[in-house]
Amino acid sequence: MTNTNYVKIFDTTLRDGEQSPGATMTSAEKLEVAHHLARLGVDVIEAGFPAASPDDLEAVRRIALEVGNPAVGESDARVPVIAGLARANKSDIDKAWEAVQGARKPRIHTFLATSPIHMKHKLKMDPEEVVQRVAEMVAYARSLCEDVEFSPEDAGRSDPEFLYVVLGEAIKSGATTLNIPDTVGYTTPDEFYRLIDGIIKNTPGMHDGITISVHCHDDLGLATANTLAGIRAGARQAEVTINGIGERAGNTSLEEVVMALKTRHPVFGLETGIQTRQLARVSRLVSNYTGIPVQPNKAIVGANAFAHEAGIHQDGMLKHQTTYEIMRPEDVGVNQTRLVLGKHSGRHALRTRLAELGHSLDEVELDQAFTRFKELADRKKVIVDADLEALIADEFYRPRDVYLLNDMQVTCGTMGMPTATVRLRDQTESSTRKPPSAQAQWMPRIKPSTASSTSRANCSSSTSMPLPKG
Amino acid sequence: MTNTNYVKIFDTTLRDGEQSPGATMTSAEKLEVAHHLARLGVDVIEAGFPAASPDDLEAVRRIALEVGNPAVGESDARVPVIAGLARANKSDIDKAWEAVQGARKPRIHTFLATSPIHMKHKLKMDPEEVVQRVAEMVAYARSLCEDVEFSPEDAGRSDPEFLYVVLGEAIKSGATTLNIPDTVGYTTPDEFYRLIDGIIKNTPGMHDGITISVHCHDDLGLATANTLAGIRAGARQAEVTINGIGERAGNTSLEEVVMALKTRHPVFGLETGIQTRQLARVSRLVSNYTGIPVQPNKAIVGANAFAHEAGIHQDGMLKHQTTYEIMRPEDVGVNQTRLVLGKHSGRHALRTRLAELGHSLDEVELDQAFTRFKELADRKKVIVDADLEALIADEFYRPRDVYLLNDMQVTCGTMGMPTATVRLRDQTESSTRKPPSAQAQWMPRIKPSTASSTSRANCSSSTSMPLPKG
Repeated sequence: MTNTNYVKIFDTTLRDGEQSPGATMTSAEKLEVAHHLARLGVDVIEAGFPAASPDDLEAVRRIALEVGNPAVGESDARVPVIAGLARANKSDIDKAWEAVQGARKPRIHTFLATSPIHMKHKLKMDPEEVVQRVAEMVAYARSLCEDVEFSPEDAGRSDPEFLYVVLGEAIKSGATTLNIPDTVGYTTPDEFYRLIDGIIKNTPGMHDGITISVHCHDDLGLATANTLAGIRAGARQAEVTINGIGERAGNTSLEEVVMALKTRHPVFGLETGIQTRQLARVSRLVSNYTGIPVQPNKAIVGANAFAHEAGIHQDGMLKHQTTYEIMRPEDVGVNQTRLVLGKHSGRHALRTRLAELGHSLDEVELDQAFTRFKELADRKKVIVDADLEALIADEFYRPRDVYLLNDMQVTCGTMGMPTATVRLRDQTESSTRKPPSAQAQWMPRIKPSTASSTSRANCSSSTSMPLPKG
Repeated sequence: MTNTNYVKIFDTTLRDGEQSPGATMTSAEKLEVAHHLARLGVDVIEAGFPAASPDDLEAVRRIALEVGNPAVGESDARVPVIAGLARANKSDIDKAWEAVQGARKPRIHTFLATSPIHMKHKLKMDPEEVVQRVAEMVAYARSLCEDVEFSPEDAGRSDPEFLYVVLGEAIKSGATTLNIPDTVGYTTPDEFYRLIDGIIKNTPGMHDGITISVHCHDDLGLATANTLAGIRAGARQAEVTINGIGERAGNTSLEEVVMALKTRHPVFGLETGIQTRQLARVSRLVSNYTGIPVQPNKAIVGANAFAHEAGIHQDGMLKHQTTYEIMRPEDVGVNQTRLVLGKHSGRHALRTRLAELGHSLDEVELDQAFTRFKELADRKKVIVDADLEALIADEFYRPRDVYLLNDMQVTCGTMGMPTATVRLRDQTESSTRKPPSAQAQWMPRIKPSTASSTSRANCSSSTSMPLPKG
């Protein structure tokens, strides 16, 4: 199989990550995350499971077209592969191909379970049927797409001898990547090393054109260690997600694997294409869009990952940074770089710093951001990146305003009927007119449940707001 | 060294965990956490760092007295060792001994750094001085206390040959536990296995009375894997925290190590004394008291750890639970056990279930809880454990009420002066009088900033409340 010192990073945040309970993203959000993953330098983006719904198919199709092709004047070199997942049946494979074919480098990723428990209880197929289905469906996928990945689901609990047979058939039928998933997060690093090592040594037809991939889950807290064990055994693709989100306890964390390979380079001797300084930003983006928080003590991207509390540690840090720090915070994009711009500074410097942070604004957006920036500079002398991120999130990453709240009056309490009176302006009808005053622009933008001029409301649903003077 | 199939769990939630940035607990909270750790079945509680402050010393002293001694009629068998941390100097060791000596099984845990970078930049001592200091201070600790643990700080980056010398001196001077910390979360599982294996084989004077311990940090996401690698190499004590809290990316998670040993028992062949069904409850308790949230995709104790989102997985789960589940949720205390009590049921059943959940209430508290329970049963037909936990948290884990809010009236808006009028009752002055009506008992209990009968307030600081009818 492929044996270089380069490990491909296959990001499945938009597929396995999106399967996290409660983590549904809109198509627009998925597209934006895909753009950021490409910028981060991932080699493969698994953009979704097109057979799940027409919406999912459409989201993958847009990502394939918009993120899976080079911009005008760009080379193909850093354009990511766009993969679509498909069960081992023609209908799923057709939908995956429909979704990814617009990409410069499309991939169909198909899978079938190979563990006794899955074959018996879920598939209700015997092993011979599984082997035959894999051969047929990999060949079918390969008839559509040059780049086919096959995964024997629940490989971690499958009989290795049976895996060699199934994987041998997949190679014969045209698969170019063989992905070995520990679907239920069950193996230990030693077991997983032996599994991958055995597959590389014993699968019939293994050749240089084949990439071995690993895909681990964190049910016992071992996903990162298992992934690294698989890489040591010869895997050259790691399937991971930002923040380690995914089914149950989640998938392997992209940031942990990448930073372990980088920090311990002398041990592993391997490279990835990841721009590690973007890790903190992409982590925040995914957390915001999925609504899944990152705990403060999460490795690499947690709020405390580079914080030092104990007096003993602070003392050591002051004497020499490396006493308690094995990575520099700036290497993963955690920094306190100060914008030395005050209120007399210009739009250009702001635009430059925002671009460095990954936000490309058009002229109108930049005007808005600059106005907010000046406001902030008046109140706060030193503006750090976190302030800019908050400003941008506040200004641009939210729904379009439909109504503008002009006035509000609330009376409520333990005695008498609670009332609220509001005056609203429909922004869609009067979009060419100017708002009545500049001050109104700075009122909180809320979406009221009705547009009637007087409505009865429970006090608890009123929105707090700064009250203008006088 | 000690070679049994029992792994001691040394919990340092109250020491290293409490060093998490932002995680300060009160002495009362520490005491309560210690009680729950003892109930959970940990073998050693590291209760704090007594030299840090008189408050810390006092907190450790109370835990030693109240949690480190058997209740009347109980045997000593399951009473945990109470350990206090001390730098390798007489003053720290004296304070640690002062704090822990009231326990039935006290331990002094002293440490000194042995890595070149720590010795040079932090300690400014040469290796010979380090060896001599360790010998002197371990001997001094042993002159006070039979049970002495020594840790060579930053062992993960120390020269193994130097470690053998230092650890040999510690044994000669009377240490009974040798703890090997990967202080900066730097090693890989293979390296850590070799480190522990080398120490066991090469340290002069190693004998059956010595327990080897491991203490890992999660900076590269490898803490659990490193701890298990150390155990495979022969360590029989694991230093861990609830939810993996601690400095930076935190310590090894107690729940991950314990459940890996249990779930993969055929691989490890080892036991712990942990009552795993209490893991979810103790995790919530520590998260509440430290204010450090647990991310949904945290292994074992995250909210999603046993949740299944994808249609494929749900289908498999319905066909056979083990298709996607390697642990039963009830084994870690995650369950939906239903209290089949309705509003006609009795106090006894409620008390029994609360006791099973780890809450022992006195008669007055039980009366309060029962009243709330009846209220809830009127509104909600099926009451699950989560409801009971919320009810208990609401009723008992909060400050004593000083003022009772009788009436409130608020008027505010974009025009005119905002006003709020409140009527309060001082509970401390009229504690023997009955409240004016039963209804007032169920009003929200807020702590107003002033007790004046009419005060001007910003609308945003008003508290929403259910309004009585009529």
